[in-house]
Amino acid sequence: MSKNILVVAGDGIGPEIVAEAIKVIDALQAEGAIDVQLHHALVGGAAYDEFGDPLPESTLTAAKAADAVLLGAVGGPKWEPLPIAKRPEKGLLGLRAGLELFANLRPAILYPQLADASTLKPEIVAGLDLMIVRELTGDIYFGQPRGIETLPSGERRGINTMVYTESEVERICRVAFEIAMKRNKQVCSVDKANVLECTEMWREVAIKTAANYPEITLTHMYVDNAAMQLVRAPKQFDVMVTGNIFGDILSDCASMLTGSIGMLPSASLGASGQGMYEPIHGSAPDIAGRGIANPLATILSVAMMLRYSLGAPDAAARIETAVSAVLDQGLRTADIMSAGMRQVGTVEMGDAVVAAL
Amino acid sequence: MSKNILVVAGDGIGPEIVAEAIKVIDALQAEGAIDVQLHHALVGGAAYDEFGDPLPESTLTAAKAADAVLLGAVGGPKWEPLPIAKRPEKGLLGLRAGLELFANLRPAILYPQLADASTLKPEIVAGLDLMIVRELTGDIYFGQPRGIETLPSGERRGINTMVYTESEVERICRVAFEIAMKRNKQVCSVDKANVLECTEMWREVAIKTAANYPEITLTHMYVDNAAMQLVRAPKQFDVMVTGNIFGDILSDCASMLTGSIGMLPSASLGASGQGMYEPIHGSAPDIAGRGIANPLATILSVAMMLRYSLGAPDAAARIETAVSAVLDQGLRTADIMSAGMRQVGTVEMGDAVVAAL
Ligand SMILES: CC(C)[C@H](C(=O)O)[C@@H](O)C(=O)O
Ligand SMILES: CC(C)[C@H](C(=O)O)[C@@H](O)C(=O)O
Repeated sequence: MSKNILVVAGDGIGPEIVAEAIKVIDALQAEGAIDVQLHHALVGGAAYDEFGDPLPESTLTAAKAADAVLLGAVGGPKWEPLPIAKRPEKGLLGLRAGLELFANLRPAILYPQLADASTLKPEIVAGLDLMIVRELTGDIYFGQPRGIETLPSGERRGINTMVYTESEVERICRVAFEIAMKRNKQVCSVDKANVLECTEMWREVAIKTAANYPEITLTHMYVDNAAMQLVRAPKQFDVMVTGNIFGDILSDCASMLTGSIGMLPSASLGASGQGMYEPIHGSAPDIAGRGIANPLATILSVAMMLRYSLGAPDAAARIETAVSAVLDQGLRTADIMSAGMRQVGTVEMGDAVVAAL
Repeated sequence: MSKNILVVAGDGIGPEIVAEAIKVIDALQAEGAIDVQLHHALVGGAAYDEFGDPLPESTLTAAKAADAVLLGAVGGPKWEPLPIAKRPEKGLLGLRAGLELFANLRPAILYPQLADASTLKPEIVAGLDLMIVRELTGDIYFGQPRGIETLPSGERRGINTMVYTESEVERICRVAFEIAMKRNKQVCSVDKANVLECTEMWREVAIKTAANYPEITLTHMYVDNAAMQLVRAPKQFDVMVTGNIFGDILSDCASMLTGSIGMLPSASLGASGQGMYEPIHGSAPDIAGRGIANPLATILSVAMMLRYSLGAPDAAARIETAVSAVLDQGLRTADIMSAGMRQVGTVEMGDAVVAAL
């Protein structure tokens, strides 16, 4: 039975990179390796420009009906003057919340072909393969009360609330433990339990949940130390699990360790297996429309989608192998270019992956 | 007129490293270069063990009466089972709040003699000289409401509150701008203004305050991107200014870029010029009592103290020159040891700095 994919290309380089990912989907479809139907909708700045709303009701409805969502990227300076409620980011956050995608999987993998791209010394990052599991529908991103109030003195005060319930912590820890069971069985839970009660509770729940996974080694680290350890010795980690805001910061730090965030996909999963897939990098408005963006993170996001939401692990593996082959051929977009390689544009890179499938 | 310094050695390696810093103070005092009186008090786990309180009233009173506080470090696994209100960290936070030390200055400097210690490639970090200005008495560290409540369902919920008033943001931005005026006049304000209203207000206030500093170039960066950019190209920054929790994470990341956090001092300043000075590194319980800890960050904290709170910039410069000389002599504690250098212990390193003064 055919599966439904909702494609939301978004802003900036979103449409360009998503177009290449669609080529890969189409190629697999043409040879019968997968059976999917693509639908399209607007989100982010593109949706705001069209409907005055970064997440039109129709987009959310279509997303709920889909088996998986493929997202490009949202945001750009054009929409920065808007109030937070109308910003492109709100469209993305609305999709995460509306689809209850509470588990964000962010692999930080160093491709051996791109080892040089890292700003870290080779011995520090060679073979890096770290999975960050970030909670995605709670924390200070969604906590109430929030906003800017005016005090009796006339001075303004800004407020946001970090909040987690035990069940929210438990379900994300379970995801991390399940993933670690298929890897090296090491989970590092990151919190600020020495200062924040919310994360003190997080730590307690993590420990309690780990009792169901006797094979897992659970460790704990304060978030400031985790930021240091990622720079000092990132290979000490197998799986990291943390809250929404700490995960936002640490996963970006971790992906930059590889020097090639143009290569890194991500998955956001709900309880049902439905998921949203997107590159880790942003909408890169500075290079939008120039045909030079790297489509590989989006193409690899399709691989994650096939594996986690569409039950097509073989097709997923073929995409990953094809991407690796293209790197072996020496093809590089500008962001990962190095001496002796052949620089190509977005379209040429997409075509090369299709050819290598 | 003699100035008062309150020495709070704290926990773990705190007493060992502070002892070496005191030697340096004594040496300057003996030759009449400075005129100070030292007092001592307990804080952190040491204070909890003695008084059942990580910040006894007597310590806070003595700190308020002092011109400056010299702190070692607090915390350790021994006290981790305690509730947050009794933990060593609470002693440190209580000193910051009680003395209204709202401005935390955290330099991340790469010593040319230690260039190899960094995990980053030399060209990325050579010459790194970045100053992080972190707000220290507000934000989610101190915001109300906070705690763990039990919902009607029986489930628990943890809460902390990120909160800033305009005047709190303005005064920390002023500190950053003043510091930048003596440096390269570039300030990057770090927030999450695309998601958090509290930091949206932060950005507005930063822009407004910058109007008083026409020579300053103010830029803005989201905290996740800032964590990436620190790894990608840290030399793009001159001064960074941010809130308490983002500053906690980013400053630890930044100091690790140098590979030698055993070298980095910090200052926490109030409106009056009073300040608390401490190494950036923690209490390192794993190596406490073994005589191998690096005392240089604490000794350099004395230099910051002389410069910012005690009006003795010449003596401050002499300490910094002496530390550099000792590195030139090839002396290294274990944490910064490299091939061809001479490894020394805590005491020997302190003696060498005194000899080089
Ligand atoms: C665009 C923004 C709202 C988003 C986030 O903060 O979650 C992004 O940084 C991410 O990590 O996906
Ligand atoms: C010990 C802890 C409370 C403290 C903080 O989080 O501020 C420390 O990490 C620091 O940065 O000085």
